[in-house]
Amino acid sequence: MSLQTLQSLVDRARSKGVSKLAIAVAQDDDVLEAVRHAQQDGFIQAILIGDEKLISISAKTAGLDGRSIEIIHEPDPAAACRLAVQSIRSGKASLLMKGLVTTSILMKAVLNKENGIAKAGLLSHVALFESPYYHKIFGLTDAAVNIKPDLQDKISIIKNAVDIFHRLGISQPKTGILAAVESVNPKIEATVHAAELKEMNRKDLITGCIIDGPFALDNAVSIEAARHKGITSGVAGEIDLLLAPDINSGNILYKSLNFLGGAITAAVVAGSMAPIVLTSRSDSAKNKYLSIALAAAL
Amino acid sequence: MSLQTLQSLVDRARSKGVSKLAIAVAQDDDVLEAVRHAQQDGFIQAILIGDEKLISISAKTAGLDGRSIEIIHEPDPAAACRLAVQSIRSGKASLLMKGLVTTSILMKAVLNKENGIAKAGLLSHVALFESPYYHKIFGLTDAAVNIKPDLQDKISIIKNAVDIFHRLGISQPKTGILAAVESVNPKIEATVHAAELKEMNRKDLITGCIIDGPFALDNAVSIEAARHKGITSGVAGEIDLLLAPDINSGNILYKSLNFLGGAITAAVVAGSMAPIVLTSRSDSAKNKYLSIALAAAL
Repeated sequence: MSLQTLQSLVDRARSKGVSKLAIAVAQDDDVLEAVRHAQQDGFIQAILIGDEKLISISAKTAGLDGRSIEIIHEPDPAAACRLAVQSIRSGKASLLMKGLVTTSILMKAVLNKENGIAKAGLLSHVALFESPYYHKIFGLTDAAVNIKPDLQDKISIIKNAVDIFHRLGISQPKTGILAAVESVNPKIEATVHAAELKEMNRKDLITGCIIDGPFALDNAVSIEAARHKGITSGVAGEIDLLLAPDINSGNILYKSLNFLGGAITAAVVAGSMAPIVLTSRSDSAKNKYLSIALAAAL
Repeated sequence: MSLQTLQSLVDRARSKGVSKLAIAVAQDDDVLEAVRHAQQDGFIQAILIGDEKLISISAKTAGLDGRSIEIIHEPDPAAACRLAVQSIRSGKASLLMKGLVTTSILMKAVLNKENGIAKAGLLSHVALFESPYYHKIFGLTDAAVNIKPDLQDKISIIKNAVDIFHRLGISQPKTGILAAVESVNPKIEATVHAAELKEMNRKDLITGCIIDGPFALDNAVSIEAARHKGITSGVAGEIDLLLAPDINSGNILYKSLNFLGGAITAAVVAGSMAPIVLTSRSDSAKNKYLSIALAAAL
């Protein structure tokens, strides 16, 4: 099976009932507007942690009904992040979202060895895209967290993303390892990593997905382009998931799809005990809402 | 001024009269089809160097009139590349195009110290895009030649691209240095390079363009995204030219625009005595034709 639209994430989220979403430093108009939308659609109950007065003002601006939210007053941003993480540990909330706070402060609380919520492996960013130029939903990792992942990091990054596909009902996501070219070139490390990851997948050292590569992007998303280059692969032109070489290439592709490709997106940080919604200020309201839906659907 | 469409390159090429285009190892149906189109439109006269018999077959397939072409018989690909380069040195041709031969064999002839056509600096790939999601033509460099350019290489790469903009009548191209983020992070070398390039531009060590960065792609192409991040820059949202961090990110963006962005493109390799048209097999016929037009317009 495959996902056809990101809107279907909303149906999946709804079918799971109402998820409790803890928002760290929640006094952010844009975030609360997306939360209001998700709450109205019946799949989110928000716990707003931060400065109570500022949250009340933002909630009003965003049109959030005061009776439908719980506010926990903690004006210090780092302490608010710790409280939000604590609410995941205690089971009070099942999803975490970043509000008006820098990513590094929230991540410090998430990664805290004693009181954090990191699991083995590493945290990584996973984005799903609906593009007018591709025939199904596809994923991209990692566009935002890991700067220059080595081979071991890439294995963890793939596992985090594959786990998300499994939860969405796609049992063997076709995973394309991206580089600039489709042949192994020792001068381009991403192509060497690609050959190693493919081999590990064949030997069942990385399971739950079908890995192929290296691919230039055209061969990964277009069967015609792959044929022109003489590439025969069940993954070429049919990828469910793309692994980017590094944060520059991943982020540039993420932004290209959103700003120069007419795509919409939903993204989470995976690898912790709960999905983390880490939207950026320049993400559209729709993308923020879909990201909450993705987190709730998992 | 700014270019609004890539089709306008054809008008520019035509206004320069008929350019002689030497094609190395010319027995390539797709290349000759683009050449036929350019020849019919009156801005190209082709010199086809390679295996005469195979060229005649390809020319027939492509619909090229046998009377309108000159064939130079040289069945050995490396020798054919040397002859094509020689035709540039002697002034017999003013443009060079790759046919059915690997890029490395052609580049060996181009870069030969005694008989080649390289200038000081380095060769680099420059692509122009017409995207339905951006308000003017913009350039991207380097998506195909330099793998991991250092700061000095990036200066040459910018100069090659800026020279093209000048020849197209854009005197101060707004040049955005791309990375994953819009602030300098010592762990992301592209952001450090960006700060250095911007400073060199301010000190008139790199001239003929306005450099700013680092930019995440959204801030470079969308003024709204830049405003959301609090970026004030005359370059943000108005870039004419993007410098990619490395070949992976450049190539992925190039392919994303073409295969997941509905864009059309024209590209050449710059930095030698003549523009080199180096299209890829997966490029569309239209992109190949526009690349010839770009080379002829320069």
